[in-house]
Amino acid sequence: MNFCSHCGKSTYLKVPDGDHRERHVCDHCNTIHYQNPRIIAGCIPTSGDRVLLCKRAIEPRRGYWTLPAGFLENGETTMEGALRECQEEAGAQLHNPLLCGIYDIPHISQVYVFYRGPLINDTFSVGDESLEVELFRKQEVPWEDLAFPVISLALEHHFADCQTELRGVRSSTVIKRLC
Amino acid sequence: MNFCSHCGKSTYLKVPDGDHRERHVCDHCNTIHYQNPRIIAGCIPTSGDRVLLCKRAIEPRRGYWTLPAGFLENGETTMEGALRECQEEAGAQLHNPLLCGIYDIPHISQVYVFYRGPLINDTFSVGDESLEVELFRKQEVPWEDLAFPVISLALEHHFADCQTELRGVRSSTVIKRLC
Repeated sequence: MNFCSHCGKSTYLKVPDGDHRERHVCDHCNTIHYQNPRIIAGCIPTSGDRVLLCKRAIEPRRGYWTLPAGFLENGETTMEGALRECQEEAGAQLHNPLLCGIYDIPHISQVYVFYRGPLINDTFSVGDESLEVELFRKQEVPWEDLAFPVISLALEHHFADCQTELRGVRSSTVIKRLC
Repeated sequence: MNFCSHCGKSTYLKVPDGDHRERHVCDHCNTIHYQNPRIIAGCIPTSGDRVLLCKRAIEPRRGYWTLPAGFLENGETTMEGALRECQEEAGAQLHNPLLCGIYDIPHISQVYVFYRGPLINDTFSVGDESLEVELFRKQEVPWEDLAFPVISLALEHHFADCQTELRGVRSSTVIKRLC
């Protein structure tokens, strides 16, 4: 951030009175520009023992497989955002979606919120942001070609929870890989 | 938003190619300025059948009671943010905090994430943003003087879950009140 989005003058970094962190501040109109983590809302669509994955048609990670997910929009609930992404990316709707996991990714200031539910009528199609959409059993998942570490973790948790019939909500942190 | 925070030129609202929503866009440097919901991370600190509440020393809702909570910062996990707020506002630390609820508030584009845990050594103190910090049993909670609807809802859920010994994760939406 270089300029104040309110008045257009230059901003600079300082710790505002009563705060503990540096913020982008405008000296002209006194606006403090806070920057905060973003929420990604996503789904784990299921059909029996299979999950629905999308091959990404867009960067980053074009050509790699992911769960339907995207940035939560203003005015949406996390479930609404998750179901919208599922419709947009996979042409799919879920029956009785339930919260199944929160994944913090602090090094990129993101928080994923996932909802799980069975596909309605086993119906899905390829959305604008997908090259392919397909159902996979655990052993069929393209584990080496998943788009992001959080997707691997959410899928590992999903298949583990299916085996134990545990249906709680996962709470986990994705650590930055050093290599 | 009136000006581009990257180059300082005027922004205007348009639907970018491949998007479905209006965004603040800069015609000069082509930056698209997305605006997204913010996460508030909070705690439900417990001591036996009591919960720790803070009387707010700051606006909005100065003088009303709340759970320790605040905006998640970049680089934090939701649990780290919740525990930081608990320390800052109530001088309190929690033993083994566990995720206990996600509350969507779509009309103000906020998502609350709460962690519950017992106070370490029953120790707490009044932080800079609090006028008082106090433990309350269910019947002692100042229900009419709580700061925000989400706080009422989280406390109702907490006390209900204590009674049934249910310890799952709540997922709920706070609806805008019409009166």
